[in-house]
Amino acid sequence: MSSGVLLKLAQKFNCFYLTGYQAAECKPFVVEGCQVGLIRPDVMRQLINYPEVFHVSQGCVELNPAFRDYETRSCQVDQVLRELRARNVFVTLKGWRDECYEVKTDFMAQSLLKMDRCATCLFGIRNYGVTINGFVRHPQMGQCLWFQKRAATKQTWPGKWDSMVSGGLSVGRGIMETAHKEAMEEASVPTELLKRLYSAGCVSFYFESERGLFPNTEFVFDLELPPDFRPVCSDGEVECFEILPVGQCLRKVLAADFKTTSAPCVLDFLLRHGVVTPENEPDYLKVVELLHVPLQSIYAPKGRPRENGVA
Amino acid sequence: MSSGVLLKLAQKFNCFYLTGYQAAECKPFVVEGCQVGLIRPDVMRQLINYPEVFHVSQGCVELNPAFRDYETRSCQVDQVLRELRARNVFVTLKGWRDECYEVKTDFMAQSLLKMDRCATCLFGIRNYGVTINGFVRHPQMGQCLWFQKRAATKQTWPGKWDSMVSGGLSVGRGIMETAHKEAMEEASVPTELLKRLYSAGCVSFYFESERGLFPNTEFVFDLELPPDFRPVCSDGEVECFEILPVGQCLRKVLAADFKTTSAPCVLDFLLRHGVVTPENEPDYLKVVELLHVPLQSIYAPKGRPRENGVA
Repeated sequence: MSSGVLLKLAQKFNCFYLTGYQAAECKPFVVEGCQVGLIRPDVMRQLINYPEVFHVSQGCVELNPAFRDYETRSCQVDQVLRELRARNVFVTLKGWRDECYEVKTDFMAQSLLKMDRCATCLFGIRNYGVTINGFVRHPQMGQCLWFQKRAATKQTWPGKWDSMVSGGLSVGRGIMETAHKEAMEEASVPTELLKRLYSAGCVSFYFESERGLFPNTEFVFDLELPPDFRPVCSDGEVECFEILPVGQCLRKVLAADFKTTSAPCVLDFLLRHGVVTPENEPDYLKVVELLHVPLQSIYAPKGRPRENGVA
Repeated sequence: MSSGVLLKLAQKFNCFYLTGYQAAECKPFVVEGCQVGLIRPDVMRQLINYPEVFHVSQGCVELNPAFRDYETRSCQVDQVLRELRARNVFVTLKGWRDECYEVKTDFMAQSLLKMDRCATCLFGIRNYGVTINGFVRHPQMGQCLWFQKRAATKQTWPGKWDSMVSGGLSVGRGIMETAHKEAMEEASVPTELLKRLYSAGCVSFYFESERGLFPNTEFVFDLELPPDFRPVCSDGEVECFEILPVGQCLRKVLAADFKTTSAPCVLDFLLRHGVVTPENEPDYLKVVELLHVPLQSIYAPKGRPRENGVA
C-alpha cells in the first residue's frame, strides 16, 4: 500500500477520538453519578428544554438522579426522544428502530437504562456489535474474504460494501447469540458451518458523523467457509455478496463505497492473518493503536482511581 | 478463569502505565526537541552529575542539543553509562550486553542515537521485539502451544517460562530477520518450517521493574509446527521446552514462574484463536485494551498537534 493510506483510514474511523474528543467541547453524560457518554453542544441545546429529565450544568449533563431504576430512566428518556423525533430536530431520530441498546458504565456492569439504538449517538453511548469475517482457503485463489453489499433501503450506510456479517448487540441478546442470529439472517450460514465460528478479538474506535458520536467496540469472529459455500441473504438487508482474495481486500476497504465503520474489522483480519505486516505497512503500529483506542477507560473519572487502577 | 485474574495479570505487565505514568513523577527525556523517553527521579539524581551531556530542567531532561549527529549522541551517552556502570549505581547496568537498541521518536523515524539495551530502561526508551507463538494442531491433544524455559544463566528472568521464541530488535536488524534468527538460535526451527511463519499483529504494554521502565511493543508471529517437531535450543539460552494444549495455557501464564512481560503475547494468541472469549472472560475488553496501550502516541507532545492528529 502506498504510504499513509491505512493511517488515513484509521484516522477517519477515529475522527472523533482524534479531534472532537481532544477539543473537549462535549460534556460528560452522567447517570447515577457515573459518566456513560458524551454530549455535543448541539444536543445540549435541545436537552436544556427538558430540565425535569436532564440537568445541564457547567460540568456535565446529568440524568435526573430522582429516577432511581432502569424502567423509570428508560421511560423518561424515551419520552424526550420521541418528542425530539416528532419535532424533527435530529437526523438520526428519523431512523427510529424500535430496538434498544443498553446504557452501562462498563460492558460487564448492570445496565442503567435502555435507549433506542438510533438515539445512542446523541449521547455518545458506547455501543457493541459483532462482526464475522467469512473466509475461504480457496484451492485456486488462496485465502479469500467474503463481503456483503448493504441493501439500498438500509437506514444507515445504504448501498455500501460491508463485512460478510455484522450486527449490534441489542437489549436481551448475548454476543455469540447475536453472531449466530446475524449469520443466519444476513448470509444464511447453516448451523453446521457455524460450529466453526470462533472468537478472534475485538476492535475499538470512536467515530463521528452528522448523526452523532459512535464509540464502538466490535467483537470479531472468524469463520472458515468451504469453497463451495455461497452466502445468501434471508432478510432483505443485503443486495449481494462478493468474494475477494485477501491481497485485494485493502483496496476494497479503502474505496469510497466501503462502510467506514466496518473497515476496522477487515483491517484487524488482515493484520491477524499476515496480509498487512510491519514490513509492508509503514504505519503498522499506529494503525494497530487506532484499532484499539481505550474506549473502556475513556469515560472513567479523572482525578480519582479508575476501576482498572488508572488515576 | 476465575473472575479478575486475567485483568490482574494485564495490570501487572502494565504496572507503570497504570501507576507511575499517571503519578507523573518522571520527566520527559528529550532529544533534538522531541520526547523519546521518561526518566525516573532516581535516574535524574545521577544524570545531574553530567551537565555537559544531560540538561536537567524543571520540565525535562534534555540531551545536550550541541550533539548534532547519531554518532556523537551515541558516544556521549555511552561514556556516561559506562561510568555509571563502573560506579555500580544501577542494577540494570550489571547486565551490559554490548548490543544496542535504537532511540527514535517513532518506530519508523530515523534513529537519533543508539544505547546499550540494558540501559534503555533507565530512560524509558520504547523497545521493540518479536515473539513467535509455535503452535501445533495435535491429532490427540487438539491445538497446543510450545513454551520454553529460560536458562538459569540468563541475565533477565532466569529460569522463568517464556514464549517458544522471542528476541529484541537490536541495531541493524529487521523484524522478520530477527524472527528467523531467534527461531533458529532458540528453537532450531528449520528454514523449511519458517516459510509458514506469519505476522499476526502486535501487543504494547508499559512495565516497570527494579531495573527501570519498559514501554514494550512486541511484533507477534504465529508458526504452525508439525506434531512431530521438537524445538531444540542451539545457543544455550534455553533450559527446556514444553508443549501444552491451549486450554492449559492460561494457568501456565498466570503462574509465578512465567516471565511477566511474555504473558501479553500468549494472551493475544489465546484471544485471537478463540480460547479466551468475551463469553468466558468477564474482563475481556479491559484485557484487550491493556494489551494495546497507546505507546505510539504516549510521548507525543501535549498542547500541539501530534503526528496522528491527537492534540
